[in-house]
Amino acid sequence: MKYLNQQEAISVDEELFNEYKFSVDQLMELAGLSCAHAIADAYSPDSLRSNKVLICCGPGNNGGDGLVAARHLSLMSFVPYVYYPKRTDKQLFKNLQHQAESMGITVSVDCPAGEWVEAEFGLIVDALFGFSFKPPVRESFRPIMEVLQKTKLPIVSVDIPSGWDVELGPQTDCDIKPDCLISLTAPKLCAKHLVNAKHYLGGRFVPGKLEEKYAMNLPAYKGRDLFVKLC
Amino acid sequence: MKYLNQQEAISVDEELFNEYKFSVDQLMELAGLSCAHAIADAYSPDSLRSNKVLICCGPGNNGGDGLVAARHLSLMSFVPYVYYPKRTDKQLFKNLQHQAESMGITVSVDCPAGEWVEAEFGLIVDALFGFSFKPPVRESFRPIMEVLQKTKLPIVSVDIPSGWDVELGPQTDCDIKPDCLISLTAPKLCAKHLVNAKHYLGGRFVPGKLEEKYAMNLPAYKGRDLFVKLC
Repeated sequence: MKYLNQQEAISVDEELFNEYKFSVDQLMELAGLSCAHAIADAYSPDSLRSNKVLICCGPGNNGGDGLVAARHLSLMSFVPYVYYPKRTDKQLFKNLQHQAESMGITVSVDCPAGEWVEAEFGLIVDALFGFSFKPPVRESFRPIMEVLQKTKLPIVSVDIPSGWDVELGPQTDCDIKPDCLISLTAPKLCAKHLVNAKHYLGGRFVPGKLEEKYAMNLPAYKGRDLFVKLC
Repeated sequence: MKYLNQQEAISVDEELFNEYKFSVDQLMELAGLSCAHAIADAYSPDSLRSNKVLICCGPGNNGGDGLVAARHLSLMSFVPYVYYPKRTDKQLFKNLQHQAESMGITVSVDCPAGEWVEAEFGLIVDALFGFSFKPPVRESFRPIMEVLQKTKLPIVSVDIPSGWDVELGPQTDCDIKPDCLISLTAPKLCAKHLVNAKHYLGGRFVPGKLEEKYAMNLPAYKGRDLFVKLC
């Protein structure tokens, strides 16, 4: 299986929208759903101290995946709580937030305090920054990054562990250490730097021709599964 | 579990879009995906004479569900072929067709001949008309309806067996007899007239408040399943 560099990840994404004419609504729904499924596979609610999940959503599409995952997790055995501080004017994101809130999920702009997070939640989902991230982390996200760096709770990162270089992986010793990474479409190079972490592939929508063009060599999805457990 | 009448089905649909702010792209993707999953559960490719599936898509949202299901079936162990004669100018539907074709699925405007269907396919998916259907079937759809009425292949109907009255069920002895019905969101009254048929519920996206408002009393989805097998 190939690990994509940052430019390849950006190009694959652009082709899905421009050549294959997928809408962001469609692919974000499928990506977020596959994240929810991978999380439900990796963490049975019994295996966690609490079924409450803190989902940290960034300003871009990675955050959108998190909002979708929150909604689907709420339809399974989890109780999501969303931290979503930096909102956009895009209608899709407003709608995703509205959908989550209408389904009883709290979506907050206030950075949760570290002690409260440790006491309240069983799992953290990191949907802050995705494959287009370039360091450094901007000032307003430093507080939540510090919570993620210091937590003892398991962290599931969506596509990229936030703060990591998309190709080179962690940049300092205090970078976050996800317990699980869900790579979407195909893994990016930083995934080679995972240590003692579960690794899933999600986003079962890649056209065969696109997979070939980028020589992705993806593993086969089994049956109806929306994810592949890589390790 | 409640069986919705036609006006309730229309109102539930409108609320999902207007009150909960889902986009058609999102819900059609989830509905079509749940159809593909229910089909894969009900019919293993080994259980069919062929893994080739004829998917008959009507002009409205039921047809859109069929186009989405075709794409997801092609990513599992099925080879879909789409009959989609009456196209709209809506960008979403053009895109759904383009996505399917880009993934190697034939999408044809020519009504397949009955003998060819019997020889070529293992399964037929009926995604012609949905819950807003009012009889009679318009002239241009009569030939495909005749193929469905006469076939010996199993037919899976999406939401409503096409040609049936949404509340009263089959109107004549020659109306189609689905081997399987996939009710989306909640079953409609016509589903009470199924005879010797599998029955699935799909569309795992109904907000709890909406379910309560319409007293749907839906059965629980298990684990990560995108469908419930009702019988």
